[in-house]
Amino acid sequence: MSFVSTIISKREGKTLSAKAIADFVRGVVDGSLPDYQISALLMAILLRGMDADETRALTVAMADSGRRYDWSSLGKPSSDKHSTGGVGDKVSLILAPLAAACGLAVPMLSGRGLGFTGGTLDKLESIPGFQTRLSAARAREVLDAEGLCLIGQTGDLAPADRKLYALRDVTGTVESLPLIVSSILSKKLAAGPASLVIDLKVGRGAFMPDMEHARALGEALRDTASALGLPCTVIFSAMDHPLGCTVGNGPEVEESLDLLQGKGPEDLRELTLILTAEMLQLSGLAADKEAGYALAQKALDGGSALERVLSLVAAQEGRLDPSAGAWGPPPPQGKPGPVAGPGGCPPAPAA
Amino acid sequence: MSFVSTIISKREGKTLSAKAIADFVRGVVDGSLPDYQISALLMAILLRGMDADETRALTVAMADSGRRYDWSSLGKPSSDKHSTGGVGDKVSLILAPLAAACGLAVPMLSGRGLGFTGGTLDKLESIPGFQTRLSAARAREVLDAEGLCLIGQTGDLAPADRKLYALRDVTGTVESLPLIVSSILSKKLAAGPASLVIDLKVGRGAFMPDMEHARALGEALRDTASALGLPCTVIFSAMDHPLGCTVGNGPEVEESLDLLQGKGPEDLRELTLILTAEMLQLSGLAADKEAGYALAQKALDGGSALERVLSLVAAQEGRLDPSAGAWGPPPPQGKPGPVAGPGGCPPAPAA
Repeated sequence: MSFVSTIISKREGKTLSAKAIADFVRGVVDGSLPDYQISALLMAILLRGMDADETRALTVAMADSGRRYDWSSLGKPSSDKHSTGGVGDKVSLILAPLAAACGLAVPMLSGRGLGFTGGTLDKLESIPGFQTRLSAARAREVLDAEGLCLIGQTGDLAPADRKLYALRDVTGTVESLPLIVSSILSKKLAAGPASLVIDLKVGRGAFMPDMEHARALGEALRDTASALGLPCTVIFSAMDHPLGCTVGNGPEVEESLDLLQGKGPEDLRELTLILTAEMLQLSGLAADKEAGYALAQKALDGGSALERVLSLVAAQEGRLDPSAGAWGPPPPQGKPGPVAGPGGCPPAPAA
Repeated sequence: MSFVSTIISKREGKTLSAKAIADFVRGVVDGSLPDYQISALLMAILLRGMDADETRALTVAMADSGRRYDWSSLGKPSSDKHSTGGVGDKVSLILAPLAAACGLAVPMLSGRGLGFTGGTLDKLESIPGFQTRLSAARAREVLDAEGLCLIGQTGDLAPADRKLYALRDVTGTVESLPLIVSSILSKKLAAGPASLVIDLKVGRGAFMPDMEHARALGEALRDTASALGLPCTVIFSAMDHPLGCTVGNGPEVEESLDLLQGKGPEDLRELTLILTAEMLQLSGLAADKEAGYALAQKALDGGSALERVLSLVAAQEGRLDPSAGAWGPPPPQGKPGPVAGPGGCPPAPAA
């Protein structure tokens, strides 16, 4: 079948076969499909939709477009958390060492900021020396030794998503449920955790402004991941104001480290514990959410999560100096600093 | 407004402003818009549609994208006929000299074959020496002297359509009513006749397989053209079998010349007379269709249309030799020759 036939089928609201979808993704990655044909199909997908079978086929084809990691030989369950993005969301910086301290392997794949939201990768790189580009062998070493590794999305991981996302961004085809689902899950499938907890943010400071759209996305993510053998829980969390007290890469790293020492804001602490509890339950390390929460609370308050992050930062060549009062260098002039947040945050400093 | 905003507006079913549409067409022609953005908008237009205002704005912007001819100083009314394309449709070759013989100026713009249908331009070029690429000055000279000229679509006439059509062809966005309407009418507006008769073919041998779709296209063409100051009549004609007895460039020219001598098939003669009558009525050269039909019949049977075409072919450097039995050179071996048709056509020769 020619690719124009595939475009016309979707334009007419027909269901694409798994083979047609795989051919499409192959053509995207090997460059044989011109951008104008890809973007025509993306618009047809956005306006005509994809059913569950098509969404799964697209997700798998995109995951298979590059390297797929396999952590099944680690000797313990692996798990990852994904956030749909919000302002001041530094949960990953706390959750990853916390989950690792509770016995999980956390091969965490992080991305850059998107739109108005920050990216964990950008935050990590504000730690002097911290390396997020690890070889597969080195990622495995760090994961074995530390129970977690924090790595950036590299070119060989779901390369179809990189290409498709770039095109979606300039062709008005970002806001499509099957395209969003396949973009998120293809990368997670390729990164290889055995389970996934999704923090789906809803509100003024998130990409999903209302619960109706968020619920549809959450269901599609959970159902698609589960059907592809990746057990998945979706937590809806409010994002009407920044999470915690700080926004900005450096300050957010500081706030995360503060929280790991018992000094952080309550909203950030609570969300992190809830998400970690979900990961522990999904992985079978806790019988239920309550047990998972208690386990995570103990690791956080007992200091083992703090130890874990200090050791991990060193393993990935970062330099933190907790004794210096500030955990890292001061944020450069002109960069965003701490902002006032609700729930026990200090008032914003006078300008 | 950025072009992505334009794409998103149309994707969401909103109405585009005349300015947004003009900016789009300008970007298509000057190359500032990448193909992948153009094709995303084309797909959004196909699936979301355009209202009458948008269709008119698109048609005008496309007509204005290149040279626009003006025949208002010819001293007689100008008119053109457009066919949506069918098999064996050689009406233009007869109608243009016939309408000219009846007192119209016919600046006829012809295109190439598309899909399974032939193009008048291809047929004309089967006449040895016939030139379809005329300068504007030469076209005017021929039109002044002969009352008609038969010219091919050149690069400076609605260049936006050329670019958009090429993209539509490879992105599954051909079958859109506003895109079809603007493509047809932008070229006719630019070519500058004072009125237009459209032969909208319906049936197995046409692009429009059924009357429902044909009627919608006919109404959109008539309403858009009329609103843009181009009086327009749409005739629906059956295209379930080839028109006349021949299919193929050379044989169709021969059959046309035969008909101009009173020897052609009845279906071709009748359709040509009906379309010519419409042009004469639209232009005010006939009080009604019946008067137009009688006028055309007289010019056809009296031989003045034949004289007109022989003179025109000579003016455009073609060489016809009516005395040689065949009007032109025999069709090359392997090319399609005469086929059997209903309504008095000779049987197909044995292979």
